[in-house]
Amino acid sequence: MQLGNMKGNNPLTLDNSVTEKYMRLAIDEARAAATIDEVPIGAVVVHDGIVIGAGHNMREEFQQTPYHAEMLAIMEACDALHSWRLEDCDLYVTLEPCIMCSGAIINARIRHLYYGASDPKGGAVNSLYHLMEDSRLNHQVEVTAGLLGDECSQMLKDFFRNIRRRRKLEKQKGQSKN
Amino acid sequence: MQLGNMKGNNPLTLDNSVTEKYMRLAIDEARAAATIDEVPIGAVVVHDGIVIGAGHNMREEFQQTPYHAEMLAIMEACDALHSWRLEDCDLYVTLEPCIMCSGAIINARIRHLYYGASDPKGGAVNSLYHLMEDSRLNHQVEVTAGLLGDECSQMLKDFFRNIRRRRKLEKQKGQSKN
Repeated sequence: MQLGNMKGNNPLTLDNSVTEKYMRLAIDEARAAATIDEVPIGAVVVHDGIVIGAGHNMREEFQQTPYHAEMLAIMEACDALHSWRLEDCDLYVTLEPCIMCSGAIINARIRHLYYGASDPKGGAVNSLYHLMEDSRLNHQVEVTAGLLGDECSQMLKDFFRNIRRRRKLEKQKGQSKN
Repeated sequence: MQLGNMKGNNPLTLDNSVTEKYMRLAIDEARAAATIDEVPIGAVVVHDGIVIGAGHNMREEFQQTPYHAEMLAIMEACDALHSWRLEDCDLYVTLEPCIMCSGAIINARIRHLYYGASDPKGGAVNSLYHLMEDSRLNHQVEVTAGLLGDECSQMLKDFFRNIRRRRKLEKQKGQSKN
């Protein structure tokens, strides 16, 4: 497991069994996305040990740009707390957040972000940018990267391999008809 | 008017009277936000000369982190086109977008972003970051900054001055009661 920066004044040190438990819930969300042919990414928001928001990628299903897992989990958490400020909340997501979701995490004042797989092409936490630690913004987010990272990464690889296989089969079927 | 970078392959060159017309609609949206005590920021999405999405800041009203003007305008536009890809769409917003909204604009494949006032503390288009021109991402957005910028800026200044006045009056009232 690759550990990211552990900054800020978080008084709570969660041991691995606890953080892995929440990441497994995010993985369950991701698997739910895969069953409807969405890229398997899942997220949960935890407050005082309780999951108050959960979401998985539904961009294709609803044809909505913002419907990434993190955004949907944050929106559910805002409803639960009746507040757009999610202070003292932690977010667990299976893939490194993009720019949009990183911005939402900062805007929501999320305390600690745990993510699984890295996203070299679009990740804005450690890959392309380091948005969570930008001291010019009015909030910084603690980060733990690579939590169950291999499992999260494998899930994405399997999903895309299945898509390629399916497309290949469809192509072969089309050729045999002609 | 301060003009931003004009990149990309946009075949359409809109003259000022057209772009100002759409920015005035975004300003109307912003004024609607002010009437419900939200920070006056408004946005519209335009496709083929038609406004297909409009929104104003409703973060406080709904206690939802993502309910910035741009996000709501993008969501309405996605519904209108039944697509999360808003290609050939332009977005007009009264204030320079934050990180979250900039990410959404890029994710939505918005063609051209027009914004009014700069946001030195949180703007991610020219102030803190230059996200729209990041060649590592799979989409870049043309930018025109400062369109009716003075008017957009003045609207925000008036809003915050009124809030300060109101707070001062409430404090004076409180003191006269004691």
